[in-house]
Amino acid sequence: MTVFEDRTRRCQSRLADAGADAAVLFPSTNLFYASGFREEPGERHLFLFVPSDGDPVFVAPQMYDEQIGDASWVADRRLWDDGEDPMALVGAVADELDLRGGRLLVDDRMWALFTQDLRETLPDATFGLASEVFDDLRVRKDEAELAALRAAGAVADEASVAVRELGEDAIGMTETELAGEIERLLAERGGGDLSFGTVVGSGPNGAKPHYRHGDREIERGDPVVLDFGAYVDDYPGDQTRTVVFAGDPPEEFERVHEVVREAQQAGVEAAEPGVPAEAVDRAAREVIEEAGYGDRFTHRTGHGVGLDVHEEPYVVAGNETELEPGMVFSVEPGVYLPGEFGVRIEDLVAVTEDGCERLNDSPRTWKPL
Amino acid sequence: MTVFEDRTRRCQSRLADAGADAAVLFPSTNLFYASGFREEPGERHLFLFVPSDGDPVFVAPQMYDEQIGDASWVADRRLWDDGEDPMALVGAVADELDLRGGRLLVDDRMWALFTQDLRETLPDATFGLASEVFDDLRVRKDEAELAALRAAGAVADEASVAVRELGEDAIGMTETELAGEIERLLAERGGGDLSFGTVVGSGPNGAKPHYRHGDREIERGDPVVLDFGAYVDDYPGDQTRTVVFAGDPPEEFERVHEVVREAQQAGVEAAEPGVPAEAVDRAAREVIEEAGYGDRFTHRTGHGVGLDVHEEPYVVAGNETELEPGMVFSVEPGVYLPGEFGVRIEDLVAVTEDGCERLNDSPRTWKPL
Repeated sequence: MTVFEDRTRRCQSRLADAGADAAVLFPSTNLFYASGFREEPGERHLFLFVPSDGDPVFVAPQMYDEQIGDASWVADRRLWDDGEDPMALVGAVADELDLRGGRLLVDDRMWALFTQDLRETLPDATFGLASEVFDDLRVRKDEAELAALRAAGAVADEASVAVRELGEDAIGMTETELAGEIERLLAERGGGDLSFGTVVGSGPNGAKPHYRHGDREIERGDPVVLDFGAYVDDYPGDQTRTVVFAGDPPEEFERVHEVVREAQQAGVEAAEPGVPAEAVDRAAREVIEEAGYGDRFTHRTGHGVGLDVHEEPYVVAGNETELEPGMVFSVEPGVYLPGEFGVRIEDLVAVTEDGCERLNDSPRTWKPL
Repeated sequence: MTVFEDRTRRCQSRLADAGADAAVLFPSTNLFYASGFREEPGERHLFLFVPSDGDPVFVAPQMYDEQIGDASWVADRRLWDDGEDPMALVGAVADELDLRGGRLLVDDRMWALFTQDLRETLPDATFGLASEVFDDLRVRKDEAELAALRAAGAVADEASVAVRELGEDAIGMTETELAGEIERLLAERGGGDLSFGTVVGSGPNGAKPHYRHGDREIERGDPVVLDFGAYVDDYPGDQTRTVVFAGDPPEEFERVHEVVREAQQAGVEAAEPGVPAEAVDRAAREVIEEAGYGDRFTHRTGHGVGLDVHEEPYVVAGNETELEPGMVFSVEPGVYLPGEFGVRIEDLVAVTEDGCERLNDSPRTWKPL
């Protein structure tokens, strides 16, 4: 039995426990997790029906026949040609699997376009979210998954050190040029697709937590937020350092950087089995609040990382999920001073039997390497 | 009034015509089209409520405050912090705009995660899709949009010629290496983000229409499907050529390539105002059917291209949408011989007053340049 079939069988036993008759997946990491078939979401109807009992069934465009056959252990494929009605196939599958009056858990990221079609074709069904059964399976990583996450962490670490070694040479480069250089370094060291749009936030741009990069040129003394990563073996890297390439930073920067560094350390130290996820958030946040920057830390402390770069467990107030060995998440507190600069420091950690393991370990200092 | 506000106002007048009380957008090209704010979908609740009358309202994470303020003309932002309940804000906005019993058109690509939350928070509302009002606005491109699409077409054309000039040097490169070279060429010529994962399908891999690239090395005489593009000024390029870098291709290849080239030409010639989109599909398909390869052309002839690389109008049997000036779509017939090779040729075209304009014009021959 492949790892994918094994995961599907475990999913099926949980469906019954959840009072659900089937999960209905579409191109997503849940679909890959269960079937081994990976594809981006698209406008063509492509579903995997995973009934609580029996074998799963694909409903897919004809043009995917060979790719699904190559990638997936799921043998039952119902194919439609462009110009045909895919929902007629969905209706037939629902009849065979006796799902018309059932409770269906749809992929959390399924487009409204498709959930509307499912509701119209199966008006007597009720709907929930696939995360009800998938999150609890996916949140604990197995050894192969941890090995991939460590490898992705190493690629991000190596690229981080290499780009910082530009030193004076980075002065005068635009953020976009520096992002291109980072992406080249990631690829050179074995990274595949980017985990997300590379962030190079220099000076005041660093104060926007979700800024990517632009035409601003790096100046001497600029604090620069560098947040990036790439996939290795299907799992993403994600690491942030806030650095100065050359020159003296603004006076308040040194203090803010030290506060964020201590907050990040406190968050990592709080991560161990049995504590709720929100305790990691609280530990990091308290350091920043005590330093007087509480209202400048405008986001949660972290997010789980696995096949999705943002997934459970979210490290946020209100998340009482108990940490368990194998859970992987970011610890990334930040302080943002609008119009001036931002500071964020981020490592991924994997919860172990008695604490946690950092998956990133490049230097956290802001000073030129 | 900005172009974005103007679009929103036109959307609002159509909402009333459609019997809808509001559109509810989330990070998508519809959101960018109406607000000027661009973001990738994410797990945080971020909505734009566009009522049929009055001013739109953002419900957004606090951390996006500055970015939305910089990017959008929409001034009303209701912000929530990580750890707070965003749906409480949604409920308050629904009360203010009197939407609780209304008909709401949700973004077609909104994740089920969010549509489920909307249904739970607003149990008396009914739901449709935002495409009901957005598609008809977006499908006719204005002059600025056409200029961006031409520029993206030129970047793809230039990269296509440049990569083909590798000639003998491409022999022995892996598909993945060649994809990297194409992506470098696109960036060098002014392309931004890739329109989609670059396709380099050599030999039998070209017979899988949605294959990307892998470790296979290009051999002499291999037919290679090259399908790629990059964004310029927010609009994507998308072009396909099937080429041989060096050596003699399989005997049947020359014949299949000529059939596909003629089919593509027939599709382009059929594109003019007043004909249904499906007529373009039929014109291309007839050429392939007459040549005896009908069952090897396993997909529609094309898709609309705009802010999304796949959007209306789809060039497919059953789509009776009448073509109008300003519509832009791909014409990309293909023939796929499993285990042997595939051939696809694709240009984007823009419908004009009396026919159509090709947005790509790099050589369509398979022969080395």
